[in-house]
Amino acid sequence: MVNIIHRIGIRSSAENVFKALSTIKGLSNWWTEETEGDERVGEKITFTFRSETGDIKGQMAMEVHELNPQKNIIWRCISGPDEWIGTEITFELSQQDDQIIVIFGHRNWKEQVEFTAHCSMKWAVFLLSLREYVETGKGKPSPRDLKIDNWN
Amino acid sequence: MVNIIHRIGIRSSAENVFKALSTIKGLSNWWTEETEGDERVGEKITFTFRSETGDIKGQMAMEVHELNPQKNIIWRCISGPDEWIGTEITFELSQQDDQIIVIFGHRNWKEQVEFTAHCSMKWAVFLLSLREYVETGKGKPSPRDLKIDNWN
Repeated sequence: MVNIIHRIGIRSSAENVFKALSTIKGLSNWWTEETEGDERVGEKITFTFRSETGDIKGQMAMEVHELNPQKNIIWRCISGPDEWIGTEITFELSQQDDQIIVIFGHRNWKEQVEFTAHCSMKWAVFLLSLREYVETGKGKPSPRDLKIDNWN
Repeated sequence: MVNIIHRIGIRSSAENVFKALSTIKGLSNWWTEETEGDERVGEKITFTFRSETGDIKGQMAMEVHELNPQKNIIWRCISGPDEWIGTEITFELSQQDDQIIVIFGHRNWKEQVEFTAHCSMKWAVFLLSLREYVETGKGKPSPRDLKIDNWN
């Protein structure tokens, strides 16, 4: 199995970081503005990504599998790109020095493909958006996200 | 074996991207200002990272293993952090649409550790610096690099 795993530090409280990762409002401020659904365990959140002209470029649904306040989150991808279905998205929080450290994972890809490399880079850019949102109140969610290559 | 693999697109020529990845001058403009050595195949390049106060925070040496102009580069890490020794750094270039696509790899880590996750995020930030340097003439090499967590 192939995993994308990144580490970022955020100067804020664990409560604020957890809120940004676990609520519809929080997620819509750093990943995609079009975040809809029910954020509770066992329920489903749908994320839609559009081009600047409004066409849908990607859409995926995550089932919320674990939610441990200020500690960790696990989602399971139940629809979206073929390569994503069955993968898990994980966030683990800890306090180190004056930062909340987030270990982000997009785990259990069946194989390493070029799309995995694209997603790895893109997740890093969205984690910078997460940090910016939590620290300053303003992130760069889709469709205002930083583009990284010819796929987005 | 664990691999970090990212994909980024740069609006420039393959020559310019290759130059930024394969020459002492190019590397010192996006990875670390303190890049020294001999850029030819079989030779060694040393990269030094310092804190803002001048202390050495990290230093690694790469042996240039392959250099195929406008196509790919392979380095082998011969000294540096324990986890890096024996790993390979790879860059593969291709033209797609109006961009040069770089598939970056930091391959063959013995295991996934927290430091791998730090390096994965840090490499993404340095690839943004590479793109900025090639497209605008000004990157963000160490020690002016974007810090991502409590380790740097």
